[in-house]
Amino acid sequence: MRIIVDAFGGDNAPLEILKGCHRAAEELQGVEITLTGSRETIEAVARQNNISLAGIKILEAPRIFEMEFEPTSILKENNDTSLAAGLKAMAAGQAEGFVSAGSTGALLVGATLITKRIRGVRRAAIAAVLPTPSKPFLLLDSGANSECTSEMLEHFALLGAVYSEKILGVEKPNVMLANIGTEPTKGDALRQETYKRLAANERIHFGGNIEARDIPNGGADVVVADGFTGNIILKLYEGLATSLFGMVKGAFKKNPVTMLGAVLASPGLLGLKKKMDYSEYGGAPLLGINGTVIKAHGSSDAKAIFNAIRQAKGCIENHIVDTVKENLGA
Amino acid sequence: MRIIVDAFGGDNAPLEILKGCHRAAEELQGVEITLTGSRETIEAVARQNNISLAGIKILEAPRIFEMEFEPTSILKENNDTSLAAGLKAMAAGQAEGFVSAGSTGALLVGATLITKRIRGVRRAAIAAVLPTPSKPFLLLDSGANSECTSEMLEHFALLGAVYSEKILGVEKPNVMLANIGTEPTKGDALRQETYKRLAANERIHFGGNIEARDIPNGGADVVVADGFTGNIILKLYEGLATSLFGMVKGAFKKNPVTMLGAVLASPGLLGLKKKMDYSEYGGAPLLGINGTVIKAHGSSDAKAIFNAIRQAKGCIENHIVDTVKENLGA
Repeated sequence: MRIIVDAFGGDNAPLEILKGCHRAAEELQGVEITLTGSRETIEAVARQNNISLAGIKILEAPRIFEMEFEPTSILKENNDTSLAAGLKAMAAGQAEGFVSAGSTGALLVGATLITKRIRGVRRAAIAAVLPTPSKPFLLLDSGANSECTSEMLEHFALLGAVYSEKILGVEKPNVMLANIGTEPTKGDALRQETYKRLAANERIHFGGNIEARDIPNGGADVVVADGFTGNIILKLYEGLATSLFGMVKGAFKKNPVTMLGAVLASPGLLGLKKKMDYSEYGGAPLLGINGTVIKAHGSSDAKAIFNAIRQAKGCIENHIVDTVKENLGA
Repeated sequence: MRIIVDAFGGDNAPLEILKGCHRAAEELQGVEITLTGSRETIEAVARQNNISLAGIKILEAPRIFEMEFEPTSILKENNDTSLAAGLKAMAAGQAEGFVSAGSTGALLVGATLITKRIRGVRRAAIAAVLPTPSKPFLLLDSGANSECTSEMLEHFALLGAVYSEKILGVEKPNVMLANIGTEPTKGDALRQETYKRLAANERIHFGGNIEARDIPNGGADVVVADGFTGNIILKLYEGLATSLFGMVKGAFKKNPVTMLGAVLASPGLLGLKKKMDYSEYGGAPLLGINGTVIKAHGSSDAKAIFNAIRQAKGCIENHIVDTVKENLGA
């Protein structure tokens, strides 16, 4: 299978991207990697850092899609960037998957209008995989569509269920709706309508509403939300975890005895840190697109890029696009 | 000053309520406490637990407002409950403040329609005080109004700024809008309109949009949100903190050495736990009501009830209602 990787997306591009691709080329069987970006810069950085590009192709794209660019400009003045080049190549049938740590907005616009949606899918959604003490869950939409209809939320539920089953290996994933109370009548009009749609849809195992308090308990396999709410959940999850771990660290530094305690307790704490580390989970798939598109975290390191490529491989091997077409396609 | 306390609200009523009131009657100067509820039950529980009710009055209300009752029923068939009795007494001028750990919905409906809003305030909001590693911040609306207009959000900003300044002692509180990006054009139509209103309002020190990721960093003194988003933030904050502390605890139990580490580190961790403990902060004020109304957490213990009464005292002493009238009243 062929996977394209944007060499110039994210805070640590291109060095960490190249390292991640090198590892993927070595370790992932049957994956052909193509990097998009300036061939000159890619080859220079690889040389300076002794990274072999053996088995990796380069698709020339002279410019970088900067974070401050308007997302829609990917269709016009910025359609010669490394981000645009990857999406266009995928649309032209030159690859099955695309990974980028670049602008989420531009990736979404480009995937929707260049690579195109699966027929029948109203809007593509960004699905984030979030950890809990017991198991990860899928949150979608986690930021692509800030205004949603109940029909869109129903599609997100279907897209999430397919991904959860095929990629995360969950049998009959429990799909729940993020809401401010558990009863069917709770929340605003959008939530009440969506509740009815999800309850009536036989292709979904609908577990009802979930309050934000219960999300970290791991009861839901798929949490459905409009993109505004989903983005609030995603970023608060990230921010609060960072902040609380920082506080725990600070508490350990209170005095020499507590510091010794921290050293003794560290094997347990390291396992915990690993569990909550986003880079273990790869990236966030854009679901509903006619191809596998993975948005890697903006601050991805080589490991996160490697995991995002492995994740793209999993989506392609497991025919996610075709399964969505069967379930949702018109 | 006179403060009424609902003896039959919350999971630990009436015992913890009575204990909290007893302590408040002893320690808080100038506060006259009246309990609402069944006199017979209140006196029996006090007797069985050796709690002195010296200096505490009782206002007879035969029934309890159960959690599963419809909030609006407080105006009709359930207007003889301990919750309704307190609001009616306050409306009749028999007290300046009311504290309840009972149904949030009923407290909101009752406060709005029995005690009534301050003239010019579109909707009352529930303000929650949330901790961060550096300082607490105020989040409103945290669940009263799941559908909001930009005018309502502007009122919430003003209410929050007054409370933050007068009660939390913040000079020129930094008011920020919960959104999915920092630029003024981010988010849905509601957020974009609200941004313009807040930026144009000279009575607010508007710090712009805040992403959920940055909320735990303590940069905002007041975070403004519609009640749906605010409730998601509030409950995820609570749920994730509980879950992460549980995970840290679990990590300590890995083996005897990590357990010893935990014991040595415990002085630092206890300070941290206290910092994140909601009961230290009292309850959530209902702002915009013509009287001081404090919603104590449903699982309040005696300490939380005591702190909620102390908080009501602070609101009354600092003339929160009059200040809101000056700033917002029509």
